[in-house]
Amino acid sequence: MQKVEHIGIAVKSLDISIPLFEKLLNSGCYKKELVESEFVETAFFQTGQTKIELLEATGPDSAIAKFVDKKGEGIHHIAFEVTDIYAEMERLSKEGFTLLQTQPKKGADNKLVCFLHPKGINGVLVELCQEI
Amino acid sequence: MQKVEHIGIAVKSLDISIPLFEKLLNSGCYKKELVESEFVETAFFQTGQTKIELLEATGPDSAIAKFVDKKGEGIHHIAFEVTDIYAEMERLSKEGFTLLQTQPKKGADNKLVCFLHPKGINGVLVELCQEI
Repeated sequence: MQKVEHIGIAVKSLDISIPLFEKLLNSGCYKKELVESEFVETAFFQTGQTKIELLEATGPDSAIAKFVDKKGEGIHHIAFEVTDIYAEMERLSKEGFTLLQTQPKKGADNKLVCFLHPKGINGVLVELCQEI
Repeated sequence: MQKVEHIGIAVKSLDISIPLFEKLLNSGCYKKELVESEFVETAFFQTGQTKIELLEATGPDSAIAKFVDKKGEGIHHIAFEVTDIYAEMERLSKEGFTLLQTQPKKGADNKLVCFLHPKGINGVLVELCQEI
């Protein structure tokens, strides 16, 4: 794991939360991106090496909608940058972690991503991501 | 906010979670620290600029014990490094955020810290921290 690439935060409304995080972080949202395959719209902030990624569901089938319904708004996942996502997936699988996909998929922000099941990691949803 | 200084993760047992995170991050826990004033024992991992801080309650009055009882293990807070914690506390208070302390207190890892109420930040417990 090279660094914490981003922290994903589930919110109900980007329109409300973008100005809130601009005040909190004292820096502007530098990008919004719709990820249609995941039914989410995202908004990014940079703080040091790590991005804060706000996630709003675009429909009821979104994992973010389900998360917010069940747990309320809050931190959704931690994404670690890796240099070789296929090698990391193999290493972590051998270590006993449960991968939520057998192959990386295209995520927001021009990344290949793979999620690990939170049950094996003290309830923490972990994303591996690699710049494409 | 200079960077994400650390991400705090509430766990039931450091004895179980330290080897787990060593496997996940593929790097060793470099420090354990008891913070008696907060009734927690902490364990640190470095990944890029950001630390992962595991937190185990040392007694039932610990905020971590209450968090785990209510929500289960998982991500507890995000800590942002600041260069002048007094100035940031004043700025954020003026912006409408609710500070959980009127003065910074001594936290783990040789830091002055102040927490912000999660209710005003989409359920995210935010810590400001400054190296002493």
